[in-house]
Order: sequence, then structure tokens, then C-alpha cells
Amino acid sequence: MKRIDSVKNEQVKHWKKLHTRKGREKAGRFLIEGYHLVEEALKSVIEVEWVLHTETATIPASWKASERDYIIVSDQVMKELSETETPQGIAAICVLPQEPLFTELKGQFLILDRVQDPGNLGTMIRTADAAGVTGVILGEGTVDVFNSKVIRASQGSMFHLPVIRGDVLEWIERFKGVGIPVFGTALQDASSYTAIEPQPDYALIVGNEGEGVAPDLLAITDQNIYVPIYGKAESLNVGVATGILLYYLRG
Amino acid sequence: MKRIDSVKNEQVKHWKKLHTRKGREKAGRFLIEGYHLVEEALKSVIEVEWVLHTETATIPASWKASERDYIIVSDQVMKELSETETPQGIAAICVLPQEPLFTELKGQFLILDRVQDPGNLGTMIRTADAAGVTGVILGEGTVDVFNSKVIRASQGSMFHLPVIRGDVLEWIERFKGVGIPVFGTALQDASSYTAIEPQPDYALIVGNEGEGVAPDLLAITDQNIYVPIYGKAESLNVGVATGILLYYLRG
Repeated sequence: MKRIDSVKNEQVKHWKKLHTRKGREKAGRFLIEGYHLVEEALKSVIEVEWVLHTETATIPASWKASERDYIIVSDQVMKELSETETPQGIAAICVLPQEPLFTELKGQFLILDRVQDPGNLGTMIRTADAAGVTGVILGEGTVDVFNSKVIRASQGSMFHLPVIRGDVLEWIERFKGVGIPVFGTALQDASSYTAIEPQPDYALIVGNEGEGVAPDLLAITDQNIYVPIYGKAESLNVGVATGILLYYLRG
Repeated sequence: MKRIDSVKNEQVKHWKKLHTRKGREKAGRFLIEGYHLVEEALKSVIEVEWVLHTETATIPASWKASERDYIIVSDQVMKELSETETPQGIAAICVLPQEPLFTELKGQFLILDRVQDPGNLGTMIRTADAAGVTGVILGEGTVDVFNSKVIRASQGSMFHLPVIRGDVLEWIERFKGVGIPVFGTALQDASSYTAIEPQPDYALIVGNEGEGVAPDLLAITDQNIYVPIYGKAESLNVGVATGILLYYLRG
């Protein structure tokens, strides 16, 4: 079994670069941490290149990768690679997936326009997964899905459904072309979400935490909707609003 | 106008203690930061004792407190008191409110059983405010509402509706006593939330991030409900689930 003790090891230096988007794209790899996420990755179509663990970490018997996939690392190396305060002693290096293609344009799609906060993005992917959404499309300016905070907040849901990057304008046209209704979210010139009926196929666009969905996108949707505010709050958290809408549209 | 330049000033040392629950309770004060929150506090029934600001911070003309309520502090003092990375240069010391009493037991109530994460609690108070909920009851073991992370995530909503501490068991009995239905949330021995109808008066209990609502509470509710998972996610974020339920019950 391979073993790495020194934080000065070249491979450790390379892996540390996976903390940045640039580093991930250059290496074609991303890093995940903790038992739950490594297990989700092993169960998914994602290719797990290496499982890293400390001497004292227990490997569940169900993780049936062959022996060469494991590397023992020292506590110092694990700490160097970890972005959490109390590492679980387990991590994995995974191959960045090719952008998955949707086999068929049918079902429910969530489109994100410039969502900035990694916790929000992760929670929204988790919520989309829970609501049985078919796929998530991340428009330009949205935080990278392989950011460690996104992965953590998604609780592994990013391994459960296709999450792709794409041009939002093009995707709106594509959905409209096959007759799938596209709903934007906006506070002005929009209807309460209860004005539309739950439906089997749709694309829902939610936007940036401060600015919402860009006006040029809102201009070409089929309909724009909002979640009414009954109290004195100025707005809802974008992740909460997304949950309310996805579950309402599900019916 | 009063002015404090040194981080060693006795008052600064006292105010720093407001970062802990113990310190807040001993002083009967809490600390808030940033323009939005200070403005919300000034507009609310909360008593603002002091507004602290740096030399370069601009005080909006609409904040019509008398001159003696303001203290100019140095950047160092503001940094010492701030818990954010880039302080806005504005903060306030507020008087901890007496627990508000609900004038009448009528309306919609959210009861939280041991919610641990400050971000979750703040988001849930914001969502309850948005959904027009009448009041929020924090059971023992729930994070302190005057924790700075809770205040920030609530975006000022904690100043908009009564948020009180209380004994959850007692409150369940009280609601049942006046005929208000009490709904627990649970994954087992529960119905999908769509099995109940939206209603004008109810109390909804949501629980700890990992463990959910305690079994002894679930045993005495009128009905227990859950938000179905249609995909492969194991669960929803508790704040998102709360939003889905509050908006559904609103109808």
C-alpha cells in the first residue's frame, strides 16, 4: 500500500491545488472529504482515483475498491489537504466528470443565474435532488460546483443528478423549442407562484442573491413568478425560495 | 460626541463580552453590526442604547436618534468588536428585550426543538417572517437568537416578530388547550404534508439538524408530517423544509 508522510511530497502539493477552480481544471481532478461524500462518490458514476486515509481511519468493508486505490497519509498531510477544522481522516481524489448530456429534454430543470454563495448552491442542488428534479444547469458567473463548500452543502447530491454548466440564454431557447415552459423568478412584473399549476415538465430560473435573475433572461421566459412576502421580511433566502417553488411545481 | 480610540478601553472590553450568550445575559445587552441591522433595530421596539461608528462611516439622515446616542470609535475598536471580515464601520449596542407575551393564542406558530446551527436558525426566523407567521418559540437547546450569526442570517427579521424561549412540552399543551392543531415533523409514522390542508391557525414543530424532533414531543402532537424525498437525497436542509411547510400551510 502506498504511503505519504510528508506535506512536502510533490503529490500533496499538486492535490492542494485542487482547492482552487483553476487547479481543478488544470488537473482534471477534484478533492472530496469525509466518509459520507467519499461513499457517495464511490456509489456514483464518478471515477474515484485515490482514497486517502490516515492510519487510524477505519475503511468501511462495503468500499470494495482494489487495494491500489488506497493511500495512507499522515495526520499532517490530511490536515494540509483538508478544508475543515476537524478532518475525519478520509478524503478522495476524483476525476472531473465530462459534462453529462441530458438523454432527453423532458422533466424538471433548475437553472441558476449567477448564484454566488457556495452554501446556497450546495443546498439548492440538495433540494433539487430531493424534489426529484431531472437536471441542474449552472449559468456563467455561478460558483463552481466542485468548490469544497458546495460539495459539503450538497451532502453528496451533486453525485445524484446531472449538474452542468451552460449558457442560460441558449438553454431557455432550447426548452422553449421543445415546448417546455420556462419560469423566471422576479419581484416585479411577475405573478405569485400559486397563479401557475404544478406541472410535469418545466425549467425554473433562480438568480443571484442580491440582484436576482438578469433582466435579459426574464424578458424571454414564458412567465415570471415570485414567492409572496406576507410579513416584514424584505426577501427570502434564495435556497428556501427554490425549495418552496420546486415542491409546489411538483404538486 | 463621545469618542473611543483604544481597544483597551473598559467599555470596549465589556462590549466584547456580548459575543457570548453568558456575556449578553449578564449585561442585558446584545451587539449588532452593519447598516441594515442597525436600521431594523432603530425601527423596531428594541431599545438601541448606543450606535457606534467609525469616523468615515456615514450616518443616514433618517436615523433620528439624539446626538448622545452616538459614539465615534477608531477602526481598531470597530474591528475588535466586529465578527465579520470587512466591518461596515457601524454597530449598535441594544437592550436585550423582555420575553414578549403573545397577546392572544391565535395564528401560526413555529416551534424549534434544539436547532443548533446559527445560520439555520436565522434563515428560519427570516422565512417565518416572510410567511407571515405570528410567533416563533425556541425550545431549550436551540442556539441563542442574539448570537451574531443568527442575527445576520435573520437579516433583521428577529426584530419583526416575537421570538421567545419556552418549554416545548408546555407550549404544545397550551396550543392543544385552545384548539390549535400541533404538527410535528418526523420521517417515520408520519404523513406527507400534502395530506393536511392549509389552515389559519397551527403550531409546527421542526427539530435538530441530525436528530429531528424529540420522540416525547412527537408522541403528543395532533399529527406528524414530512416532506417527501423524490430523488436520492437523504434529507432536506431543515431551513428549506421549514420554508416548504410554512408556505404550504399558508395556502
